[in-house]
Formats: sequence, structure tokens, C-alpha cells
Amino acid sequence: MSTNKGKERDEREYFSKDEGSQYSLHGILPPLGATARTNRRAKLSRCVISPFNPRYRIWQSYLVLLVFYTAWVSPFEFGFLDRPRVPLAVIDNVVNAFFAVDIVVTFFVAYLDKTTYLLIDNPQLIAKRYAKTWLVLDIVSTIPSEVARAILPPHFKTYGYFTILRLWRLRRVSAMFARLEKDRRYSYFWVRYSKLICVTLFTVHFAGCIFYFLAAHYRDPTRTWFGAATENFREQSLWVRYVTSMYWSIVTLTSIGYGDLHPVNSVEMVFDIFYMLFILGLQAYLIGNMTNLVVHGTARTRQFRDTIQAATGFAQRNQLPERLQEQMLAHLCLKFRTDSEGLQQQETLDALPKAIRSSISHFLFYSLVDNVYLFRGVSNDLLFQLVSEMKAEYIPPKEDIILQNEAPTEMYILVTGAVDLIRKANGVEQVVGVVNTGDVFGEIGVLCYRPQPFTVRTKRLTQLLRLNRTAFLNIVQANVGDGTIIINNLLQANLQSLETNFC
Amino acid sequence: MSTNKGKERDEREYFSKDEGSQYSLHGILPPLGATARTNRRAKLSRCVISPFNPRYRIWQSYLVLLVFYTAWVSPFEFGFLDRPRVPLAVIDNVVNAFFAVDIVVTFFVAYLDKTTYLLIDNPQLIAKRYAKTWLVLDIVSTIPSEVARAILPPHFKTYGYFTILRLWRLRRVSAMFARLEKDRRYSYFWVRYSKLICVTLFTVHFAGCIFYFLAAHYRDPTRTWFGAATENFREQSLWVRYVTSMYWSIVTLTSIGYGDLHPVNSVEMVFDIFYMLFILGLQAYLIGNMTNLVVHGTARTRQFRDTIQAATGFAQRNQLPERLQEQMLAHLCLKFRTDSEGLQQQETLDALPKAIRSSISHFLFYSLVDNVYLFRGVSNDLLFQLVSEMKAEYIPPKEDIILQNEAPTEMYILVTGAVDLIRKANGVEQVVGVVNTGDVFGEIGVLCYRPQPFTVRTKRLTQLLRLNRTAFLNIVQANVGDGTIIINNLLQANLQSLETNFC
Amino acid sequence: MSTNKGKERDEREYFSKDEGSQYSLHGILPPLGATARTNRRAKLSRCVISPFNPRYRIWQSYLVLLVFYTAWVSPFEFGFLDRPRVPLAVIDNVVNAFFAVDIVVTFFVAYLDKTTYLLIDNPQLIAKRYAKTWLVLDIVSTIPSEVARAILPPHFKTYGYFTILRLWRLRRVSAMFARLEKDRRYSYFWVRYSKLICVTLFTVHFAGCIFYFLAAHYRDPTRTWFGAATENFREQSLWVRYVTSMYWSIVTLTSIGYGDLHPVNSVEMVFDIFYMLFILGLQAYLIGNMTNLVVHGTARTRQFRDTIQAATGFAQRNQLPERLQEQMLAHLCLKFRTDSEGLQQQETLDALPKAIRSSISHFLFYSLVDNVYLFRGVSNDLLFQLVSEMKAEYIPPKEDIILQNEAPTEMYILVTGAVDLIRKANGVEQVVGVVNTGDVFGEIGVLCYRPQPFTVRTKRLTQLLRLNRTAFLNIVQANVGDGTIIINNLLQANLQSLETNFC
Amino acid sequence: MSTNKGKERDEREYFSKDEGSQYSLHGILPPLGATARTNRRAKLSRCVISPFNPRYRIWQSYLVLLVFYTAWVSPFEFGFLDRPRVPLAVIDNVVNAFFAVDIVVTFFVAYLDKTTYLLIDNPQLIAKRYAKTWLVLDIVSTIPSEVARAILPPHFKTYGYFTILRLWRLRRVSAMFARLEKDRRYSYFWVRYSKLICVTLFTVHFAGCIFYFLAAHYRDPTRTWFGAATENFREQSLWVRYVTSMYWSIVTLTSIGYGDLHPVNSVEMVFDIFYMLFILGLQAYLIGNMTNLVVHGTARTRQFRDTIQAATGFAQRNQLPERLQEQMLAHLCLKFRTDSEGLQQQETLDALPKAIRSSISHFLFYSLVDNVYLFRGVSNDLLFQLVSEMKAEYIPPKEDIILQNEAPTEMYILVTGAVDLIRKANGVEQVVGVVNTGDVFGEIGVLCYRPQPFTVRTKRLTQLLRLNRTAFLNIVQANVGDGTIIINNLLQANLQSLETNFC
Repeated sequence: MSTNKGKERDEREYFSKDEGSQYSLHGILPPLGATARTNRRAKLSRCVISPFNPRYRIWQSYLVLLVFYTAWVSPFEFGFLDRPRVPLAVIDNVVNAFFAVDIVVTFFVAYLDKTTYLLIDNPQLIAKRYAKTWLVLDIVSTIPSEVARAILPPHFKTYGYFTILRLWRLRRVSAMFARLEKDRRYSYFWVRYSKLICVTLFTVHFAGCIFYFLAAHYRDPTRTWFGAATENFREQSLWVRYVTSMYWSIVTLTSIGYGDLHPVNSVEMVFDIFYMLFILGLQAYLIGNMTNLVVHGTARTRQFRDTIQAATGFAQRNQLPERLQEQMLAHLCLKFRTDSEGLQQQETLDALPKAIRSSISHFLFYSLVDNVYLFRGVSNDLLFQLVSEMKAEYIPPKEDIILQNEAPTEMYILVTGAVDLIRKANGVEQVVGVVNTGDVFGEIGVLCYRPQPFTVRTKRLTQLLRLNRTAFLNIVQANVGDGTIIINNLLQANLQSLETNFC
Repeated sequence: MSTNKGKERDEREYFSKDEGSQYSLHGILPPLGATARTNRRAKLSRCVISPFNPRYRIWQSYLVLLVFYTAWVSPFEFGFLDRPRVPLAVIDNVVNAFFAVDIVVTFFVAYLDKTTYLLIDNPQLIAKRYAKTWLVLDIVSTIPSEVARAILPPHFKTYGYFTILRLWRLRRVSAMFARLEKDRRYSYFWVRYSKLICVTLFTVHFAGCIFYFLAAHYRDPTRTWFGAATENFREQSLWVRYVTSMYWSIVTLTSIGYGDLHPVNSVEMVFDIFYMLFILGLQAYLIGNMTNLVVHGTARTRQFRDTIQAATGFAQRNQLPERLQEQMLAHLCLKFRTDSEGLQQQETLDALPKAIRSSISHFLFYSLVDNVYLFRGVSNDLLFQLVSEMKAEYIPPKEDIILQNEAPTEMYILVTGAVDLIRKANGVEQVVGVVNTGDVFGEIGVLCYRPQPFTVRTKRLTQLLRLNRTAFLNIVQANVGDGTIIINNLLQANLQSLETNFC
Repeated sequence: MSTNKGKERDEREYFSKDEGSQYSLHGILPPLGATARTNRRAKLSRCVISPFNPRYRIWQSYLVLLVFYTAWVSPFEFGFLDRPRVPLAVIDNVVNAFFAVDIVVTFFVAYLDKTTYLLIDNPQLIAKRYAKTWLVLDIVSTIPSEVARAILPPHFKTYGYFTILRLWRLRRVSAMFARLEKDRRYSYFWVRYSKLICVTLFTVHFAGCIFYFLAAHYRDPTRTWFGAATENFREQSLWVRYVTSMYWSIVTLTSIGYGDLHPVNSVEMVFDIFYMLFILGLQAYLIGNMTNLVVHGTARTRQFRDTIQAATGFAQRNQLPERLQEQMLAHLCLKFRTDSEGLQQQETLDALPKAIRSSISHFLFYSLVDNVYLFRGVSNDLLFQLVSEMKAEYIPPKEDIILQNEAPTEMYILVTGAVDLIRKANGVEQVVGVVNTGDVFGEIGVLCYRPQPFTVRTKRLTQLLRLNRTAFLNIVQANVGDGTIIINNLLQANLQSLETNFC
Repeated sequence: MSTNKGKERDEREYFSKDEGSQYSLHGILPPLGATARTNRRAKLSRCVISPFNPRYRIWQSYLVLLVFYTAWVSPFEFGFLDRPRVPLAVIDNVVNAFFAVDIVVTFFVAYLDKTTYLLIDNPQLIAKRYAKTWLVLDIVSTIPSEVARAILPPHFKTYGYFTILRLWRLRRVSAMFARLEKDRRYSYFWVRYSKLICVTLFTVHFAGCIFYFLAAHYRDPTRTWFGAATENFREQSLWVRYVTSMYWSIVTLTSIGYGDLHPVNSVEMVFDIFYMLFILGLQAYLIGNMTNLVVHGTARTRQFRDTIQAATGFAQRNQLPERLQEQMLAHLCLKFRTDSEGLQQQETLDALPKAIRSSISHFLFYSLVDNVYLFRGVSNDLLFQLVSEMKAEYIPPKEDIILQNEAPTEMYILVTGAVDLIRKANGVEQVVGVVNTGDVFGEIGVLCYRPQPFTVRTKRLTQLLRLNRTAFLNIVQANVGDGTIIINNLLQANLQSLETNFC
């Protein structure tokens, strides 16, 4: 029983808490209608860790931090150092040790089979898959460069090439960004921006280091991009050499190309050609992403402006009276504001299944509807069903909700705010009543099916619950007893007014 | 009573007049269904100004103008001046005085609490919040630079650094643009363009001034970007030095990079690296915004062209007769033109609630429908309901509105223009009647439910009111007496034609 | 009568033939429901030309050609010539003469009032409006430069400044492109591309000429962009000077900035600063437009690929049998192909009003449906209504149209192709019949409301007319006599099979 | 009979297997309703190959490979070689031979007439069309350059110009990319990327070769872009000359423009002007395409993030209880994941015609529904129709599917997973039952039309079949006998519970 509970909690975690684990579903979703075809194991075997284990996730995040260090240090060592130097060499080996531990750990982490979408926890299969895919590259990129120098023939520039191999670890950063983009705890915009900035900075750094490497190892130092501009550039301080390399790299990347530094020999030209081709794609990628974010970020405001413009144009063209124009604009502005607040109530609710929607309505409106005089004494069942059909709405001040003589299609419950009942006689509007919070209006028209006797106009910002006539009647018809109670409630409350109007 | 009125007028202002105040709603919108949970104060306490007060708004707008001055003068003083000079120094202190006044005023301006969305007018809370957020920076950026120089140790380049602190005021410009974008009184396009231009110009100016500062304060003037190109550059006129700095700044910003001016020492390179990285983002941002505006601005025309192309292709593929092709195209062109005029009638109306839509229909069509022979003598209620259901349409010349023998689904009232009634017999079309402005047609088919006896074709551009049969019958069924009147009207008017055709 | 006809023909032209005249509608569209409020004149007064007159349009197009000449020659003369030279000076004056004629003509062309949308033909109002808007600039830009030189004081560089004034005429090109974009006779893509190319070429040419002007008129020729690179540049041939100016202009515009030519003195720098700021906007505008066109041009293909990918994924995930997968893909491919052919039948038809749709259906399908055995002897009215409800469809080979035992919801008429009737018994499929062109199938299920007795499968690409059961029954119910005829036709034809199955 | 079969197989191939053949349809699609107007030949005449023949396709693909070779070698020979050199000259002539063969073959390949959309196999018409369009250019581009040199006058630089003519073959690459974009076997993204890379590389290569050609053939070698930078550049190795040309070409293309190499004489400037104008368009095209791909590629994730954000905002604003918030988010996450897996079940299914949808439902769910106790003993027809109406859904753990007292609108069959039946009494929830795989729930509410007696909540990830009440009743009403069986099944199974609740 407890293991079952544990499993359920696990699944739950995949869904609601740990949004980053976008693969988790794959192991769970069976094909449609396939009761007997899949044979999912209920529990991972001992000693094997789930890839969605929170502690394993933290370990992975920590390794990503180390990768950022590697991404900076590997090109730097390749370009500017000929052999291990003290502070960096020590840190490098500590970092290598962590990645060595991760190689061992990976043998005990279950994986998802891409074809069957099952979580595989057989240690043999895990080992086989790892051996087939990334094991060799992981091991090679973990060998300390001192060891490599000792083993390999000396004329190999092994130090540099070995450090460059460590960039293999960058795949982890890429995977991390793909995960963060789908994680609702982080802003999509900032994740994208960070990714673009990381890619750009790494490109600049990497190309700068390679450029320096080419200049430093060319047979004729004066025929290099650095030597042609600065004599004896190798005797400059490390800081000046590094800054100059970065400077050239970024002058090229931004396609500014002042020209004070430029490739001189064929080798540099060839590297620069490839760098420039890459830049062409990178620039387009940066711009494409930025455009995407700008378009997405301004969509709502643009849409609002279009609506407002169309409404204003329509009103002016047809010379609508001032009051109607103001009502139109106030309504549209209010709608946009409630939407841009991130509510977008209706769309959000519509995307949910009926049961959740009902629960929400019940939570928000039940106690309110329960106190309405019309529903005094009716069964809980009916109230529950009515509440599910209600829609909340905000209405700006001075807007007409119901017009006198209109065919009745909706009734309303006032949640907050205030509305006036207005009767027009001989062209003069006269306020004949006020609706209080928690009162219902429009019910006489709906229940007796006759034109609305009053115009109803908001006095201030008002929140209403709207109930459609057809939905209301359908529910009441299925609960005959309750229907009678409602009619009685109506008659008692409106006896006088109904007598004069004859329902 | 009067305070209540005042409050309502205030709310009204937030909605329809003062579209810039996009935050106003936050203080008013209670959560859904939350009658008792919030406790909104009806009125601000004395001495506290609402942030939506029109006079406070004007004061803010005036300060934004001063910020534009600061944005230009601060980098300029930082880069080109070592100590206060007469005309600028005086103006600076006047501007500082205005901002000092604003600091005092801010203590008396209510603010919106972000979590509860209430307008807070408690002076203590206002002071506490201001002290926690921007007070220190506001004060520091207001201290006159002469005072700063007197207080701080002399070897500090206090003048420059103090003026640069004033750029803190730029946050006001950013807030202003965010507000203008949502303000319907200003064109969205021009607000965006202005924003982009301001950002670009400020970047150019700022970077140019910093570049000059770096060159002017480097220990070896010949090893600077300016000194390497021009000897004794410090003795040039201020105009030449300013223009040259701006020139270099913008040559870099547009990524042209002629190369006549370029960083020479490490400090300049480092600054240029950061400037170039910023430029990379800025360029992408400019292009992204421009793309956004272009896509948005051409959307309607593109859509129209697609529709026309599809219609033409369809007609040619199926070898439709010339007359039908022309009808199709004329109809689509007319539809696009009425839409692009900013009317977009149907979408605009559909976004509005029913009561407003009914008011509009009533205003536009009531007097017209009232004069139609068919509705002579019917009750106002019925007319009101009929008018709400009517849709206005423009029809291009020579288009068939109704075809002979078609099942009747709609009836029409002619508003402007002219239509022919055509009867086809033995393959020959014969005009048997003309409909005058204010007449109804298609009513015989709809009321007697029999195939339309005539083809109805427009003679020129025609405006119609369309009334759907189902909607019409629903309304009439609920008003039995009026239904009889309508039928009588019909019979009297069409006695002869109905006798021959038997309704 | 004839004038009325003429007017109608005129209106007709605005709509269908002369798509370029997007303003024509403004003069015709009255506000909604506004019968008495507008007072449109039926005919233009004598001597006044309509702006939509075809001959006036040709004249305008001819003038646009001359503007292209002016756009090239004006900056050229400004930059490279000090006084009128023979071939150009003569042509210039001929061109000026044409524009002088146009000034006179404009006094006789009606215009559209922007607020009332009426075509104004009162000569006084026309003159007043022209005088207020463009008259002065039009006249000044038409004065021959020889006259200007004679009148104005000699030390004015009148020749150059006068030619530059002629660029005022460019407003005509801008108006032309706005018109062409909406003209369905020209490809939207090519109009946009042409516009962008024209803008770019003019910018390059204009800036190049100004650059040369600045160099040629600077007091110290060696301190100019040209003089710093080439000694005695003024003695070079006109061709070399022109090419070099263009070269620098475009090197800057594309932001390549080799740096062999660059501003040297402050005046050049200031001009270059403004040029570069303009370029920044122009580049963004070019990219924005290109993105817009690319996105629009690939939208359909991308959508198709998404659909296919989703279908393939769905099929593989649920291990659907091979035959079903093929049916799905064949159907989706066929749908895309018919759509991308520019047909988009359904969308096109849905955008049209009912009468036009009925006419099209009648034209395409009437003769076909008339020959179907089921409708032998029924009235034309019924046939007409049936045809309006029919939808044409293409079905790829081997696709099931009807499944055995399915609830009957549609009947079909075979237009082209071939289908098999298949009955499945004991798991074995057996072809029990073939449907010929012009035959109907599914009618037994629909008329007797019983599960379909056969599976119907296409043998090759097949075109069908689909008729919905509900729509069919609605029409037949309103024509009782015809309903009996149809049932009789059904019984006679299917007597044997119905007896065994009992309808 | 066999030929007929063959033809059908052919057509089938066009649709499902050979997605690349987007033109195939044109020959098959007759106009709507046009039975007698077209006269399509059933079979191609002897000796004529269909353009959709698989072997002909392979031949075409092979030729495209040769075109890639030509695209590289033609500009290279034009720029760097004065006369044929041994290895290249031989390969060139072999390639020419292949294209000569293709010219002959083309005379035997049917083509599609663009106006009638028929596949033309008349050899005379084929020859006539080929002669009118591409024949001359195809032949000229195939003449070996040695022959050309022998025939034409010697002072013609015939070698270079003849090789440049071969670029005419590039039209094949363009056609290939257009085809691949629509071919579902290749990723749309990679096809577009490859196309952009090919265009860029060819542009760089082509411009580089032309640049070298201009320098090598200028009368004064020191006044060329190459000569000004490197003395005696013609004596450099071919490798250095080629790399330098490419380097300059790409420095210009990326608009970096270091300035170490730049046009010197007018001829080079003129060519560079055209190159730069082309680049301006190319860069915009690259960025436009990249933006398009980025926008398309991130659309789904962005949409998901928006939905989640709106839901979170809604929940926090209205202070929904924790449990409801989690249900909302879990539901939305699950929905996104199933969608992004490429399933998008509902959209995919909705795009298919009813018969295919029914087949899929039948395949997936029939055996499952057959075993449900409620449908024991009912006819196959009814089951078949029920299955067609069922919708599959995944529900995350702990979500309420049905709420107690809710109006019954749907019944469900449990496919996988587990759900609890919960009854709430006096505010305490109590688990009163469990539903097993293959069981139905919600059926009592649906069949007796009374409020649901239980809340139904998932225990883990659950797959359900949902059946709408209205659809269910419609089907059962048309099969009265089966309806009785279902009611009996219901009564037998739920006798006790129904007795206490009275159905």
C-alpha cells in the first residue's frame, strides 16, 4: 500500500511540481485504447535512480555550473597557455573529478526508451546504451591533461587539444535551456534572452582564443593579424593579449570590421571565412529570436489598439451619439484591462474540463447564489447546477446592461457595485429603483418571458453573474419541485409589480 | 451625495477619458465573487493626491520634458566638461530644483499596492514605500554638482560622476512610453517609432561622450582613438570634438566601422567590447520591432490579396461565366473596402455586449423600420426587438440578393440604392418591378414559406438591412397580436399578387 | 435614361475593373442607416474630370514615369553640375512643361472630401483646396532653373537648390505604389519588392550626389573624403567621380564600410551621421518587409507539413494498420494540393453571399443533378434548392466514403471517377456493385434512415457531390409532392434490394 | 484489366508514396462538375515516360548532384583558369555528356499543360514545347569548351564565358528544393536551412571568382584590389589566390568590410556596387527565413507558457484553494505534453472525413467497448455507431472527472488507470468504490437523467473514452431493441443501488 502511495506521489510530482521534466510523460502515456499491449513496470528496481529524482536533478544543475567554467577555461587554455598553470590546472582536475563521478552515476540512472516510451531500469541495458552513445566521449573529455601529456608523444600539442575536447560537456547546457524554456517557474522571455547571450558570449570567447592561437603558432609572427598591428605581441601582458583577441573577435561578430586588425596569412583567412559564415547564421538567429519575442510581447497591445480604432471609426462614421461612443470605448477598455492583467478568465476556463470548471464556480459563487431570495429553499443539487452555468463579468460605470422592452435572454446577480433601474416614459428617463449587492435582476423577464420592464444601468464598476435563460430553464425543468419554489419566491417578492404588469 | 457623484466621475475618467492610466483598474477590480473579502476605501484622505489626478499628470509630463534635457546634458557634461560652465550649470540647477519639488510631492501621492490592488493613501505607508524604493536615488541624483564638489574629496572626478547619476531620471521616460502605447489618442505606430528613435539617439550620444571621456583622460594622448587619428585633439574646438565623437559612436552602432577611428588601448577596447555587445542586442531589437510593425501594417492588404487570388483561381478553374466572376470580385472588393475604412462593422459590434448593440441598432435603424408598411401599427416592443436583430450590409451594383425559386431564409429592407425585381420565364429575364428606398422585399417568401417568386438584383451600390427568418419568427411568435397585424399588412399590400400565387 | 446607365457603368467600373481606385468607394458609401442625411450628386458638373476617369489615370501614370527621370536627374545635377548642360537642360524643361500642364489640369479634377466622403466638383472648392495644399510647391518645383538663375541673386547656388526642389514630385511615386499594392492585376510580392528596390536605389543615388557636392564645395579639397583618397579628384572624368560617389554611398548603406573612403571634415561627418541614422531605419525596414513576405509566402507549406507530421505521429503512436495510415495521408495530401492550387474552394465560397453561391452551384451542378434517377420528374424549385446545398469534394483512390453499418448522414452523387460497393460478411470483403458516373449512392440509408448496407470505396480519384441528410429532408418536407416522387423513384429502382432488406 | 490495375497503382503512387510529385495531381483533377468537358487519356503512349516515373526521378536526382559540381567548377574556371586544364577538363566533358543524354531523354518525357492540367504525351507537342522553352540554352550549355574555342574567333575569351553558361543548369537545383520542401520524408527545417546555405556558399564562391577575374584581367595590376594589397599577386600559388578571393567575397557578404582589400578602379567599383545591392537583398532574405523558422519552431512552447501564465494568474487573483490550482495546472500541462508529442489527436482527427475517423475509432476501441457490461448483447450496428462517437482522453492523477450532484452530460469507459468513486456526506468525503479497467461510469446519471450520485476522481494517469449523452441517446433511439437491452443490463448490474435511489 505504501509503495503504491509512493508511486502515485511520484507521478503527481512529474505533473504539477516538477514542470521541467517534460519527458516524464513518455514513460506513462500508453497508446490510445491499448489496454493489454503495454506492460509498464510499476517501480524501478533497487540501486537505479529515476532521472526525475529531485536529488539527481540538483546534481545535474550543479554540473551545469561546472560546464560554464569549462566553457570559459577550455578555449582560454587552448589559446593562451602551452602547459598547465597552477591555479587553473588544479581547478580543472577538481572539475574533472566531478565529471568522472557523474560517469559512474550515469550507469545507475534509468532512461526512457524512445520507441516504447518506457522507463528502462535494467542495469545491463543502461550500460549498453551509455556505452553505445556518449561513454567514450565522456571519458576522453575527463582525462586530466597532465596524464594525457605523459602518455602521448611529446610533439603533439596535447594540452590544448585535450582541453578543447572538454567542450563536449556543453551538451548539458543545451539540454538545460531546452528544459528551462518549458518550466513555468522561469520567465520564457528571460530564458530565451539568457540563451542567446550565452551563445553569443561563448562564440566571441571561443573565436578570440582560436584567433590568438593561430597568431601565436604561425611561423612568421609579423605575418599574423596581431603581429601586423603590434610588434612583439607575444611579449605583451596576458591581459592585453586577451582583450585584443576578444576585441577582434567581437568586431567581426558584430560585422563592424574596423579593419585595424584583420587576417593576414591564408590560415587566418580560412578560419575567418568559417567564422564569418557562422556569424551570418548567428546574426540571423539572434534577429529571428528577437523578432519572435517582440512580436509575441506586443501582440496583446496591438490587438487592443486595433479594436479601439475600429470602434472609434465605426462610431464617428455613423455619427453615434456621444453617450453610446463612451459606452463602447469604456467597455472595450475594461475588457482589455481585465485580460491583460493575466486573467483572460473566459479562455482559461474554457480550456479546462467541465468538472474543474464546476469546482471553481462552486468555490467562487456558491455562497453568494445561496443567499439570493429567488433560490431560497431550493435543493443543493439545483444550486450546484445553476452555479456551474454562471459567468462572471465586469461592467464599467454608466453602461446599460438591460434595455427596456428588450427580449429577455439573461438574468443577472449583482456581486459588487451598484445599478439603477430606469423606466422611460414619454422620452424621460426616471430612476425607479436600485439593486443591492446580492440581488438578482432581469428575473421577471426571464421567468415570465416578457419584454424587460426596466433599463438597468450601472452606477459604478460592477461585477455581475450572468445566467442564460435557456440554460436556466433546462436545469429547472429537470427539477420540477425546485421550479415551483422559485416561482413562489418570485411571486412573493414581486407581488405588487407583477399584479400591475400581469406576468 | 456630491462626494459620491465626484467619485463616480473619477472612476468614469479612468475608463473613457484618461486611457493612459492603465493601472487605474487595479485599484477597483475586486477578485471574482469576493463580496466581503475586500474593503476598498471610497475616498482618498485629505492632502493625498490620486496618481490619476489630471493636474498631477500634467506635472509628470512636464518633468518628462526636463528628463529629455537631462538625458542630453548629463553624458555631455561627463564627457566634455571638467567643471560646471555658466549657461549649463544654471539650467542644471533649475532642473534639479524641479525634481527636488517632485521628491516632496511624491510623499503626498497615493500608490497602488501590487498584491491587494488597493490605492494606498496612508501617508506613513507612502513614505515608507518611497523610502524603501527610489528615495535615495532620487535625492542623490538631485544634489547640485557644486555642492557635491564642495563636500567630496577633490581628487574625485565628482562633477562627471554626479551628472551621470542623473540618468536615473530616465525611468520616467520609459514609463511614459509604456503609457502612451496604450493611449488611444496617439498612434501606436508613431509611439513605437519615437521610442526606438529615442533609444537609438540616446545610445549614440551616451557612447560618444564616454568614448571622448576615455580618450581625454588617458595618460598617453597619442595612444587613444582620437589622438591616433588627430594630433593635439584636445585643442580642437568643442564642436569638432563633439561631432567626431558622435560620428565614431554611430559608425560603430550601425556596424559600418570605416576604421578611420578605432580603439587603440585596452581600456577603449574593453569599453568598445561592451558597447558592441549592447549594439548587437539593440540592432536585433530595432529590426524585431520594425518587422512587427511592417507585418501588422500590411496584414489586411495581404489578406485581401489572398482572398481575391483564391476567388479568381476558383472562377477560372471552373470556367464560371463572366457575370458570375464579376459578381464575386465586386463583392469581395466591396467587403475589403468597407473593412479597411476602419469600420469592420461586424467584428466591432460582436465584441460589444447585447445592450450596447441594441442601443446602436435602435439609434441607426429604428426610424427607418418604423416606416416600413409591414410594421405599421405594431407595438414598440416588437419593433425594438426586430431592430436589434437586423444587420446592415452593403451590396455592390448588379449583384443578385435573392434568386428566383430559392428557399426563403431572409427578408430585406432597402436603406439606400435601388434594386430590380426580375422574373425569369422561358429563359428570358424580365424586370417586373422596382423596390424603393424604405421598402421591404423577400417578405412574401419568409412569411408564407414558399420559394422566392423573383430574383432581386441591385442596380447600384445598395445598403440593406437583413433580417433572418428564424429570428423574425421567434420574435413574432412571442407577440401574437403583432403577428396578426403584420400578416394583415402583408395581405392588404400584396392582395393581387398573393391571389394569383396562393400563399 | 442613358445618363443613368452611364453612371451605373461608372460605378461598376470602380468596383470590378479598376481595382486600383481604392478611394472610389468613399464617395459612394453613405453612413449606415442614413437615408436622408447625405445628398450625393448624381453626376459631376461639366468641365470637371473624375479622378477615376481612365484617361486621367493614364496621364497620371505617364507623369509617374517622368518622376522617375526627375528622381535620377535632380540629385545628379545638384551634385555634379554647376549650371545647366545641354542635353539634360532641354529634357528638364520638356518635363517641367508636362508638370506645368498637370498643374492646370488639377484645377479641373474633382476630389474626395475626407470628412463627408463626397466627390467635390465645385471648381471653386477644387481651386481653394489645391491652393491650400500643394499648389505652391508644385509651381516652385516647375520653374525652369534658367528662369530661377536669371531672377535670383547670383551668389545663390540656385541651380542646385532648384533641381532638388523637384524631388517634391516623388509623392506621386509613393501614391502609385500604395495603389498598386491593392490592385489585383499585379502581384503583391513584386509590387513590394519593386518598392523596396526603388527606395534603396534612390537613397544610394541621392546620398552619393550629396556626398560629392560636399567634397566639391569644401574650401580645402584635400580635407574631403574624395581628396584624401585621390589627389585632384575634380579633374577625374565625370564617370569615375559618379561611380566613386555611388560606391561610397552603397558601401555605407550596406554597412560594409571598407574604410578606403570616409568622412574627413566636420561637415561630412554631420551629413554622414544623418545618413547612417536613416540607414539604420532603412535596413530594419528592408528586413522587416522581407520577413513579412517570407512568412506569408511559406505559410501554406508550413501548415501542410505540420498537419502531415501530426497525422504520421498519431498513426505510428497508435499502431494503426498500414491501410488506414495510407488513407489518412492520401486524404491530407489531396486536400493540401487542391488548396494550394489556389482553389481553396470552401473558404472562397463561404466568403460569398448565399445568392452568389447558389448561382455558382447552379451553374456547376444543375445539369448533373437533373439527370440523377432519384430526381426524375421533380420540380425545378426543388432541384434548385437541392443544388444550392451540395458540396463538391475530391476523394483520393482507395478511400472509404461510407462504412457498412454506419449511421446515414449524407448521400452522394458521383461526378467523375469510380467507386465500389463492398459488403463484408464473415470478415471477408466482397465487391457487390459499382457506381457509374452520375449515379447516386447512400440514398437508401438517408431516405429509410437505416445503417448503410454497403461500404463504399473509391477506385480512383473521384469527385463527389455531398448532400447532408438534414438539409435534404428540410427541403423535401417543404415540397411534399416532390418528396413522393423521390420516394417512388427510389422504390422503383431498388425494389429487389429493398424487399430483401425492408426499408 | 491489368492495364487498368496498373493505372490505378500509378495514381495511388502519386498520392501516398511519392509525396514529392506535387504536380501529379494537375493531370488528374478535372474542374468541378465537369463530366464531359475534359477528355483525359487513360494511358501514356508508348516510348513516352511519365515525369513521375521513379527511375526518371532517380536520373534527375543524379543530375542534380552533377549540377552541384558544375556550380563550383564553372565560376572557378572562369576566374582562375585561362584554358582547359587536365583533371577538370576531362571531368567537365564527362558531365557535359550526361547532360547531353538528358537533352535527348527530355524529348520522351510527357509534360503537364498548365492551362488544361493534362499530361501531354504527344511527342510532337513535347518537342515543340521543349524547343520553345529551354532547348537552346540546354544545348549551348552542353557544348564542350574545347569545341567552342576551336570554332569561335581566338580573341574571344570563349573558355570563361562558355563555362559560365553552364550555370544555366542551376535551375534544376532550385526545382529540387521546391520539391523537397513539400516532401514529407524530409524535415522542412533542414531543407530550408540547406537551401539558404547553398545559396550563400554559391554567392560567395561566384563573387570571389569574378573579383579575381577582374583583378587578373585589368590592364594595370597595381590598380586592382589584389595588386594594391599584394605585389605580384599573379605569382602567388593558386591556393593563396583562391583563399584571398573567397575571403574578400565573404568579408563583403557579411558586411564586415575590414578594408584591407577593397575595390580600387572603376570596373571593380561597379561590380562591387551590384554585388552589394544583391547582398542587401540576400541578408534580408536570410534573416527573414530564419525569423520564419524561429517563430514557427517556438510557437507551441510560447502558447503553452501563455496558457499556464493565464491560469496561474487567474488562480492567484481569485485565491483558489491549492487543490484546485494543482488540478488546473496538471490538466494544462498534460494537454500540452500530449499535443507536443505530435499527437494533437483532436485536430488531426477533425481534419479527416467521417469514414476514416470511424475506421480509426473502430480499430482502436471496438474490442474494448464490446466487453463493457452495458453493451452485452447489443447489435454490431449499434456498437459500431457508438464507437464512432467516442473520444479518447488522458486525465492526470487526482483530477475530478465527475462531480457529485452535477447534471449528467457524459458517460465514460475506463481504458487504463484507476478512478475512485467518492461520496460526500456532511462535508466528509468517503471512497465508496473503485472502477476497474474496462468498466463504465457515469452511466446511471446519463440513462436515468438524474444528478450524478458520486464524485469520480482519478488515482493515477488515466485514459478514458468519453461518450456524450445526446449523441448516445440519438443512436439508441434509432435502435429501439438495443435500447431495451442496455436498460436491462443497467438494471441487473445496479439493482441494489438503483432501488435505494430510485431511477
